[in-house]
Amino acid sequence: MDLVTADLHGSLEDPAVSSMNFLNEVTSRYPQALSFAPGRPVERYFDLESVHGRLRAFSRHLADDMGYSQEEVRRTLCQYGRTKGIVHGLIARHLARDAGMEVDPESVVVTVGCQEAMFIVLRALRANERDVLLSVSPMYVGLTGAARLVDMPVLPVASGTAGIDLDDLRAQIRAARARGLRPRACYIVPDFANPSGLSLDLAVRRALLQVAERENILLLEDNPYGVFHGGEGTPPTLKALDKARRVVYLGSFAKTVLPGARVGYAVADQRVAAADGGIGLFADQLSKIKSMVSVNTSPLAQAVVGGALLEHDFSLEQANDREREIYRDNLRRLVGGLRSRFGDSPSISWNVPSGGFFVCVTVPFAVDDDLLEHSARSFGVLWTPMRHFYNGPDGDHRLRLSVSSLTGEQIDEGLDRIAALFAEQTTGSAPAASPLQGWLAPPSRKSR
Amino acid sequence: MDLVTADLHGSLEDPAVSSMNFLNEVTSRYPQALSFAPGRPVERYFDLESVHGRLRAFSRHLADDMGYSQEEVRRTLCQYGRTKGIVHGLIARHLARDAGMEVDPESVVVTVGCQEAMFIVLRALRANERDVLLSVSPMYVGLTGAARLVDMPVLPVASGTAGIDLDDLRAQIRAARARGLRPRACYIVPDFANPSGLSLDLAVRRALLQVAERENILLLEDNPYGVFHGGEGTPPTLKALDKARRVVYLGSFAKTVLPGARVGYAVADQRVAAADGGIGLFADQLSKIKSMVSVNTSPLAQAVVGGALLEHDFSLEQANDREREIYRDNLRRLVGGLRSRFGDSPSISWNVPSGGFFVCVTVPFAVDDDLLEHSARSFGVLWTPMRHFYNGPDGDHRLRLSVSSLTGEQIDEGLDRIAALFAEQTTGSAPAASPLQGWLAPPSRKSR
Repeated sequence: MDLVTADLHGSLEDPAVSSMNFLNEVTSRYPQALSFAPGRPVERYFDLESVHGRLRAFSRHLADDMGYSQEEVRRTLCQYGRTKGIVHGLIARHLARDAGMEVDPESVVVTVGCQEAMFIVLRALRANERDVLLSVSPMYVGLTGAARLVDMPVLPVASGTAGIDLDDLRAQIRAARARGLRPRACYIVPDFANPSGLSLDLAVRRALLQVAERENILLLEDNPYGVFHGGEGTPPTLKALDKARRVVYLGSFAKTVLPGARVGYAVADQRVAAADGGIGLFADQLSKIKSMVSVNTSPLAQAVVGGALLEHDFSLEQANDREREIYRDNLRRLVGGLRSRFGDSPSISWNVPSGGFFVCVTVPFAVDDDLLEHSARSFGVLWTPMRHFYNGPDGDHRLRLSVSSLTGEQIDEGLDRIAALFAEQTTGSAPAASPLQGWLAPPSRKSR
Repeated sequence: MDLVTADLHGSLEDPAVSSMNFLNEVTSRYPQALSFAPGRPVERYFDLESVHGRLRAFSRHLADDMGYSQEEVRRTLCQYGRTKGIVHGLIARHLARDAGMEVDPESVVVTVGCQEAMFIVLRALRANERDVLLSVSPMYVGLTGAARLVDMPVLPVASGTAGIDLDDLRAQIRAARARGLRPRACYIVPDFANPSGLSLDLAVRRALLQVAERENILLLEDNPYGVFHGGEGTPPTLKALDKARRVVYLGSFAKTVLPGARVGYAVADQRVAAADGGIGLFADQLSKIKSMVSVNTSPLAQAVVGGALLEHDFSLEQANDREREIYRDNLRRLVGGLRSRFGDSPSISWNVPSGGFFVCVTVPFAVDDDLLEHSARSFGVLWTPMRHFYNGPDGDHRLRLSVSSLTGEQIDEGLDRIAALFAEQTTGSAPAASPLQGWLAPPSRKSR
């Protein structure tokens, strides 16, 4: 044997790090299964011509609005470039338009998706073995995994019914300090959290900022779904309410522009004092780390996002009117379908979020990766075991259903398959007459 | 103050991590200076229409050669996708064509530039505080920085005149083991090393592989410049000679296709035994880490590289015929220009590499970042202090000149400016009649 995992970084034997890969891998092995698993955006409006168009629109912007020569335009898009990115100014205008946030473009670090933003923030904050992160639980598996890569423990905070239990947050911080640990930040998705679907109301947002200030921690606000509130109903972001630079804002364009661009960002306006007495932005510290992880984010990919921002006059909320309607319709259809199929089953329950991609279902049998594999193979339906979202042994009887990338008909059919799986699991017998025969297509070309 | 660097990860006060940012920052502050600093590829053939064309060519390939439906093509380019990437098969064909390497596409991990490949390999190999990396010195600053991010010490190995001093390699390994450390791998650029310009001959390559086998370490072969040998003169890569899976091959398309795509890769065919007894590829362990750093590499960016590989029938050596000539001409012009200006100065010397981007100059005065700043401001010429490439106090009297992104005329003019700087530094006086007045343009638009 060339290597053994015991001699590799501990994260590689950690379930959190394996789980995202496992979920992708199962999805690729059962390409014909109906999938409630991934939090992927709807594909109906994907359009390669619009990718070309946005690239051209951003090039025109550099020439017409910024005064670049054609040589400078080519250099900006094709050469190595600015570590913090080239669409920071456009992102600042987007945040002003959609979220009422006044952001210094220099505090924006454009990253390879929001995942890299999370990773570099945690790398910066984890100075030694005393440093720990708090996170609302259940939590996004990408956060847990990034923390494992920098050997930073994640302490769960109860979400309660308000999206975060502030008493528990205070209690966790104090308990950690009593153990000699140093809580650096609390990670939270305040809008349509993944996977709980919960959103914080305005009072909870204000109270959370107060706790952060009093307890001297940062808040890592991850906001991939906020634009799906839509219009007047959109609460202000934590960052918009933040007067004391307590919030590092993590942004994604995967759900609002295009996952394939892999462009996200961090807004990090905290002031940092260096050992030499110099004062700079936290964004510039993050930039140093980014330069050693990925040098800079592909300017071609940034240009596609920049072109989309220009095309929609900086409003991604407006740009996603169609998608928002689809997600709302899908969520209604899923919740209605759960009610009609399981409304009479007292041992099966689910939450009803006001928006977003996700519903969590609680069942009277154990839910794990083996059951997912069985569900894919025998029933042709995929979903996500909730245990992946707990940093511990919880969630064993829960599964997450995502509605974002299915049609209404697929949701109905998928729920029929889930009902057959649940019947098998609760009665111990296979369904009498399977409606599913023949659904399995030959192995996909893509499995090569 | 919101934060202090003493409470952030130690890498942020480390000169290695700061230096890449510093060098980029100086370059952007003096946009009108002639720059021998960055190892950037020539910009003359950058062409945005070819970016569009390559994107279309890759889409056609998916449809025509792979049998994808138009919906599958759109999904592949626009949606989240395979963690290890989508151009792995094309990369394997390129390596077969240009380097005679037979590579299992499943052992390829497509990354956000070669930098991410380095980072995830080091993250995997650094299991605990005993693990150390060896690297031929002087060394690429991106390697040192990535190692700092995972708290992995880098032990320098002398390059000697052969590109690596194998006696010193063995001595360093044994000395490290005697101190209770565990050397995991040795990093090396066997072809036109950055910054030394040295290449290993065939005998040294074979001997290095033997040392790796006997001492039970991996070799991290970074090969961004190999195609610039050209034709019969190209020695086999370490990976092509590797019969015992000792080599992790790190590839880049930044110099051979387009820096702005930010696409690189690792070939990691090592077999890894997991705690549960399962056996897999090291590539799949790296994939787990990548999923927590950047999820996947932008498929749009990969498509641009894939299109270029298709366009050139998988030979980037052939695709770079023009660029290779430019770099050779530039190197000849630089070396000739150094000879004509400093050939009579016994205290100034330089190496004469057979190719690549870099020449190192040794001078009788101290060379540091302050001198670079002075050179940029007062003489309008940029270069790289060699101390950035030493993991220690060496290199204080050396500077690196890169010729890759200048024209012949710029090289001549730049050398005149360097001669003026050297004259000032060696005689202690400013040049009598500066030829440089008026070169400084107003601040560039891009500095906004």
